[in-house]
Amino acid sequence: MEEMVRIDLRAGTHRFESLPEAYRFLGGRALTSRIVSDEVDPTCDALGPSNKLVLAPGLLSGTVVSSSSRISAGAKSPLTGGIKESNSGGNTGWRLAQNGLRAVVFEGRAEQWQIVIIGKGSLTLEPAGDLVGLDTTETAARLFERFGKKAALAIIGQAGEQLMNVAGIANTDPEGRPTRLNARGGMGAVMGSKRVKAVVVLDPGPNVTPIMFDLPAWRSESKGYVKEIATSPAIDRYRKIGTAGTLELVNKLGGLPIRNFSRGQDAATESITGMQMAETIKARGGQNSHSCMTGCAIQCSNVWVDEGGKEVASSMEFETNTLLGANLEIFDFDAIAQFTRNCNALGVDTIETGGAIGVAMQAGLIKFGDVEGVLDIFRQMREGTVLGKLIGAGATTVGRVLGVREVASVKGQVMSAYDPRVIKGNGVTYATSPMGADHTAGNTIGAKLDHLDPKGKVELSKEFQITSTILDIFGFCNFARAVYGTSAANMRAMFEARFGEPMSEADVRHMALTTIRTEVAFNRKAGLGPATDRIPEWMREQALAPHGATFDVPDEELDRIWDTD
Amino acid sequence: MEEMVRIDLRAGTHRFESLPEAYRFLGGRALTSRIVSDEVDPTCDALGPSNKLVLAPGLLSGTVVSSSSRISAGAKSPLTGGIKESNSGGNTGWRLAQNGLRAVVFEGRAEQWQIVIIGKGSLTLEPAGDLVGLDTTETAARLFERFGKKAALAIIGQAGEQLMNVAGIANTDPEGRPTRLNARGGMGAVMGSKRVKAVVVLDPGPNVTPIMFDLPAWRSESKGYVKEIATSPAIDRYRKIGTAGTLELVNKLGGLPIRNFSRGQDAATESITGMQMAETIKARGGQNSHSCMTGCAIQCSNVWVDEGGKEVASSMEFETNTLLGANLEIFDFDAIAQFTRNCNALGVDTIETGGAIGVAMQAGLIKFGDVEGVLDIFRQMREGTVLGKLIGAGATTVGRVLGVREVASVKGQVMSAYDPRVIKGNGVTYATSPMGADHTAGNTIGAKLDHLDPKGKVELSKEFQITSTILDIFGFCNFARAVYGTSAANMRAMFEARFGEPMSEADVRHMALTTIRTEVAFNRKAGLGPATDRIPEWMREQALAPHGATFDVPDEELDRIWDTD
Repeated sequence: MEEMVRIDLRAGTHRFESLPEAYRFLGGRALTSRIVSDEVDPTCDALGPSNKLVLAPGLLSGTVVSSSSRISAGAKSPLTGGIKESNSGGNTGWRLAQNGLRAVVFEGRAEQWQIVIIGKGSLTLEPAGDLVGLDTTETAARLFERFGKKAALAIIGQAGEQLMNVAGIANTDPEGRPTRLNARGGMGAVMGSKRVKAVVVLDPGPNVTPIMFDLPAWRSESKGYVKEIATSPAIDRYRKIGTAGTLELVNKLGGLPIRNFSRGQDAATESITGMQMAETIKARGGQNSHSCMTGCAIQCSNVWVDEGGKEVASSMEFETNTLLGANLEIFDFDAIAQFTRNCNALGVDTIETGGAIGVAMQAGLIKFGDVEGVLDIFRQMREGTVLGKLIGAGATTVGRVLGVREVASVKGQVMSAYDPRVIKGNGVTYATSPMGADHTAGNTIGAKLDHLDPKGKVELSKEFQITSTILDIFGFCNFARAVYGTSAANMRAMFEARFGEPMSEADVRHMALTTIRTEVAFNRKAGLGPATDRIPEWMREQALAPHGATFDVPDEELDRIWDTD
Repeated sequence: MEEMVRIDLRAGTHRFESLPEAYRFLGGRALTSRIVSDEVDPTCDALGPSNKLVLAPGLLSGTVVSSSSRISAGAKSPLTGGIKESNSGGNTGWRLAQNGLRAVVFEGRAEQWQIVIIGKGSLTLEPAGDLVGLDTTETAARLFERFGKKAALAIIGQAGEQLMNVAGIANTDPEGRPTRLNARGGMGAVMGSKRVKAVVVLDPGPNVTPIMFDLPAWRSESKGYVKEIATSPAIDRYRKIGTAGTLELVNKLGGLPIRNFSRGQDAATESITGMQMAETIKARGGQNSHSCMTGCAIQCSNVWVDEGGKEVASSMEFETNTLLGANLEIFDFDAIAQFTRNCNALGVDTIETGGAIGVAMQAGLIKFGDVEGVLDIFRQMREGTVLGKLIGAGATTVGRVLGVREVASVKGQVMSAYDPRVIKGNGVTYATSPMGADHTAGNTIGAKLDHLDPKGKVELSKEFQITSTILDIFGFCNFARAVYGTSAANMRAMFEARFGEPMSEADVRHMALTTIRTEVAFNRKAGLGPATDRIPEWMREQALAPHGATFDVPDEELDRIWDTD
């Protein structure tokens, strides 16, 4: 039986429900956005009791088929003021699906901090007790001690407890590190506003998977897909270098955020390339090729260790290396690893946090390149000083408070490591995605074309946004895009084996477009007019070196992106 | 000749222009909003060079007819993200109109801080030199020394220089105090973003007034109007007690903001009533019945002095006494006078600043009632510490950063001293005025009816908003409403005498509605959808003592307010 569970935190009750017929073929982002759209008043206070937080694994999640058990966290976002789906790896999605759950809906607000323990057909609320105030690592250690290492955890750190907009939900990886985040859009603050410190999803026992309509077909189809993953040269690169390898490319293109998005290229980035990273990890005895969720064969994750071989942080990502590195003029992996460790412990988005610190540096609060200054900011975020809370409010608010105009954000959410003046397809994604500036909504960097030319970039972004949405619905990692082809044939075949329902190429496209349009409609009702679908004015005026580029995709094209199928 | 002047701050040039035919019968708010709407991209960065700041006296400004020379400051607001007209007394409007100017338009952004010196057909830009960094009082003193006490000044203090959202433009009163502010919506930050420290409007000589189409008729009509002002009992009350007298009424109704809008009534307000104020000023040798602009017969302004009779601040107003007093649980006029003095010197809105401090108190940053703590905040605003800048960003941002949900604001602008859960007509004004929460857009407190009953409050607010808009267009003080009647017959007659054009009752109403609709349209294009026309959710949920009232005017009614004439 396919189920969802609702938790009324105010009353301290819960209710398992059969999945409504209308939701039967919705999963991940399609399901979180649909529930939020159906049940949440778009004008509500995102951190008030009327907002709902929805966790949903993908439609095809729950097995060890590679990278198929991503978890979507959806709600009205306190950062953007619009709808949000924030996607994460880790084992939460896998364990929820194994327990037969397609969605967990958190409603209302508890009087006292709670933990939520979910098993097969069971759910328990307990006071969080002395977990309150702990970071994600300490919280995970205590919970694993009690519930065993096979449980999956979704936790907030001190940032989520303080309702910071930069707060994410930290999910545990196969070894139990709470280092995979539903990072973007303040989903950790929403969880904190409901006073939920942690969700524990128990292991339902060995070899439990969702019931398959046609198990032999599933096995055959998923085997074919995993084989493609295993043999794809593009994926092999992720396996060896991870996302960090993207830095050289974007720097070469001149679109890498340096010094709060004021330059697009810097020779100093030579010390933080993906190759450098992989070699250092190897030489020090760390771990390249690490799976963020059980069964993942892409293994783009990694574990950074210090010179003595001691674990510092997992995982070093391109976005983090840029936003907390190059963007702060810090070109030092050991420093960035310390920052990553701090972000994971606090439970915050490295992108939004890095962007916020970059704006604070531009305001002169601390100097660019000041590693100790950044570490002090993390201390202040933990302690909740005014400066700590200001950074925790995100880059847009930092700019507003400190009088900095050059904030690279859309709908209040900071851009990731692709300057839209150069990687214009990503600029279109930032502007038009209902999620705010978020490369994961449709990252066009892989397209082999002239990224500087504004022509055709709306169409390009649109196709990438549709594909990303499909992956987010099925529960697959965005990197499965490498074996997705143009038609998602293998995933559609897996869907048919799982549900016994036909799924055509047109169907998946329709499913994605319906999801996006539902989200856009929510945003409009939330008060976010089309004028919020824009790259900030200063990026249309201030030319980015070395190309002297500005963002110049016409507004009229941006406004029409979702008009046609 | 009716003229306007444009200043291109980037180029350092200016151009006098005849007033376009389309603007001929627009003044004050109608003219600022029309120019902003015609010339400013609604999606622009409010603190970027594309925004324009427009100063415009009223249609009937430029004589010593009582309270007829208000000055409108208009721009896209950095606080609300929408269009703004912020209205002030003082002598700036009078002097501009005497110099034959209907509007001054500030465009672009200067490299260095400037002062702008305006005379009859002349305009000079000069480097601001060592005026930069000075407060409004010091700046005014230096400028008067150079240009003589008969000039009128419009100045920003350290808040405007720092681009704080709470920054207003300080206009000088007849004695030269820079204490009359275009306070709301961050117009001082817009002036600061253009790097204009001060505008000096020279005295064009004795008895200069705009050319009258029919001078005898003007004299006769204005005389009748001034007589009404002089004999109106309602206005007599303003003359004796000022706005401060409203406190007792609103406290009695249970709608006075106490302790960050958490209670509506407090016996402790007995020590800050209007009567208390008037008596103390009298006993100490201060000044009740003070004119904020030359010729004003209403004289609602005052000058507070300390126990030794030394001037502390002008003017003690109901809004200030509440937002910087009762709302902070500070029931002490001497403390509030110190706060007012600080606000005037910094050049900030006492309402937004008081609201922001109230939210900071609720977050526990300083205690409610802590006078020294508030004075320290002003010091920090002056020095530009992180906390100072945070308060300077306004109440909504303070709530966002410090995690306080109970922020009484609409479109990012804090409410004034009427809780919308009790004074529901003002709640409708806050929600539906294109200006954000602003009682001056349509203050229904004077209506003799049940303020708690939600029925009919949309219609009530609408009529008050229309009247306020008409007064803002003609250039008359809102308190002239007391002699306005239902048809503005005297003002319409003065208009006809001034311009030789007929002006019917329907015409003035049409003029006001056109202005408001122009503003609403700008907001929509700026990305502010109808969902931003709302009282915050928590005020619909959390009942206000003593009446247990919530804001309960239906959304559908709010949405239809401007649909009909």
